[in-house]
Amino acid sequence: MSTAEYHTISQHDLKAFTFSVFKAIGCSDTDAALATDVLIKADLRGIDSHGVARLSGYVRLYENGRINTKPNIHVIREKHSVFTLDGDAGLGLVTAPRAMEMVLEKTAHYGSSYAAISNSNHFGIAAYHAMMALEKDFIGMAMTNASPLVAPTFSKERMLGTNPICYAVPAGDEEPFVLDMATSAAANGKLEIAERKNKPLPQGWLEDKNGATTTNPADLKGGGYLLPLGSDIEHGSHKGYGLGAIVDILSGVLSGANFGPWVPPFVAFLPVLPDLPGKGIGHFVGAMDVDGFIETAEFKRRMDQWIRRFRNAQAITPDQKIMIHGEYEANLYKDRIHSGIPLIDKVCNDLKTLATQYHLDHPF
Amino acid sequence: MSTAEYHTISQHDLKAFTFSVFKAIGCSDTDAALATDVLIKADLRGIDSHGVARLSGYVRLYENGRINTKPNIHVIREKHSVFTLDGDAGLGLVTAPRAMEMVLEKTAHYGSSYAAISNSNHFGIAAYHAMMALEKDFIGMAMTNASPLVAPTFSKERMLGTNPICYAVPAGDEEPFVLDMATSAAANGKLEIAERKNKPLPQGWLEDKNGATTTNPADLKGGGYLLPLGSDIEHGSHKGYGLGAIVDILSGVLSGANFGPWVPPFVAFLPVLPDLPGKGIGHFVGAMDVDGFIETAEFKRRMDQWIRRFRNAQAITPDQKIMIHGEYEANLYKDRIHSGIPLIDKVCNDLKTLATQYHLDHPF
Repeated sequence: MSTAEYHTISQHDLKAFTFSVFKAIGCSDTDAALATDVLIKADLRGIDSHGVARLSGYVRLYENGRINTKPNIHVIREKHSVFTLDGDAGLGLVTAPRAMEMVLEKTAHYGSSYAAISNSNHFGIAAYHAMMALEKDFIGMAMTNASPLVAPTFSKERMLGTNPICYAVPAGDEEPFVLDMATSAAANGKLEIAERKNKPLPQGWLEDKNGATTTNPADLKGGGYLLPLGSDIEHGSHKGYGLGAIVDILSGVLSGANFGPWVPPFVAFLPVLPDLPGKGIGHFVGAMDVDGFIETAEFKRRMDQWIRRFRNAQAITPDQKIMIHGEYEANLYKDRIHSGIPLIDKVCNDLKTLATQYHLDHPF
Repeated sequence: MSTAEYHTISQHDLKAFTFSVFKAIGCSDTDAALATDVLIKADLRGIDSHGVARLSGYVRLYENGRINTKPNIHVIREKHSVFTLDGDAGLGLVTAPRAMEMVLEKTAHYGSSYAAISNSNHFGIAAYHAMMALEKDFIGMAMTNASPLVAPTFSKERMLGTNPICYAVPAGDEEPFVLDMATSAAANGKLEIAERKNKPLPQGWLEDKNGATTTNPADLKGGGYLLPLGSDIEHGSHKGYGLGAIVDILSGVLSGANFGPWVPPFVAFLPVLPDLPGKGIGHFVGAMDVDGFIETAEFKRRMDQWIRRFRNAQAITPDQKIMIHGEYEANLYKDRIHSGIPLIDKVCNDLKTLATQYHLDHPF
């Protein structure tokens, strides 16, 4: 794809450039490679809002003194299979996979393990961390709290982030089942796309600062807020609010990070609130060993049966395909690894600006 | 409350009667007391659809040979903190709390523990099992698959149950946070209420057997299906579908129980499908020790802060109260424990029929 709007860059070139940016802001080789891998995997899987499109955002947070690129990530509390990690204000792109590495070791030993992470920053796509479990034939889980954008049912105050939940489950011949979802009706990225294309939103995504329903994406920046999954009380918005709350409680309250309206904003130009109840933003990751429950080969056979039966569920209209979570992203990954990653103009320009600022070679 | 529609029965009398029914179908004293406690707690918490209203349903399944009231519940696989239990076709009201007892023991030892349960039956409210963790200051989790009623996004085939998820989190001076939610847009009980009151449903709960939107609750029995949380693709029904799927995978695929469209129906008059992939229905329960992550008193202080901040979030209109999950149910519990449990005529008549059939004293 190379139209007026898109430039396609090979994943190899994009990786090299991204690595050089993380190096330029002071990351070690190991950390820069890890953070790069998290971002590029998002782009390869088609989660374009969470890949290199966010690179300049991380750099601005570093420049603002809110990201420490030489963190001393350390365990602050532990009880056999569970523990809490202090990310030392490091990149979430680094603290979350580090936590997950420890979780996988503990899961191999205990059968399950969970880690709460405080004092961290935006961790990219939740799927990267949860999917680390798949290599061991474990079930992986990852969630994070985030800058407040979502109002609880009946409220007009931004109290929760879009707080994603991800589960990754191994299968046999089929692709792994990977559910990675925001707990809001729509993720922020979808609003950005609508705003760029100058399109009205569906009802039920957004309300304006006075609590009135709106289809104008600009009302978010005007002080409005996203609605929880379910959109209104009649359609279960208290459930979406509840899911976002559980993510906030496990990621923020349990870890010692900030929570609710106190979660620091991702964008560097917004101030952090005073009297914070904790440190940075929080994540929660975990894993379970399939083999502790059922013979692994038998489980994979059953997962394949599950996936095939759901894929073949009766469609409403014959042209509609029943989706299996993670399949679309896995196919896109296989494609983009060869054909490259399409970036929109705005992202290319952002990255070019970074290259100029830090005197880096670039492929744009 | 004692109107034409409701009869209020003291929880003590209702407990004694329910116990006598479980005894009459062959449960041991211990199992009958446990199953009774699960049902009465549902009624006390105001989850009327999952309390004694279901008692005759369990009895019909027993009469049909689908519930074994003298089960040998046993561990079939185990790896330190995780294990799988075979419920031996027992009442889910008994197998799930038994599994949770073991989970709590293992959590005290390992910091976390998870159990998959196969060969079980309907387990009542998920909150009962998850809330068992609260006595130990643990975070509890419970989910179950259930008879297929929900169609995936783009499908018109019933593939998933309303598959609930529950998290119970201890607090300090505040009531515990308890999220107990179906992963469908509306729980089946809400349709039953609408049908009883002859009221149309909101759009987005139900579609008829041809995949057309409908507001007529009778279309469910006519071969229609419930919609996942989110209702349609534009409002995130793929997320509700994905959550229901994860519940099905952990409860059914991982445990060795049935899954998807093969989950046996709760009502005894519907046949079980041939060529089942597993045994009975499945549950998944777990717990984590708060103290393994953060000092427990500190966590409770933080949870109180979380709850108070959210309760005080700015409301859209001043008369609206921002809900905290589990608070309404806890207040109802405190009320009903003294004032009794209101039962609708239909439920009273059902219970009277049971009393006659099994020659039992009754308070109705």
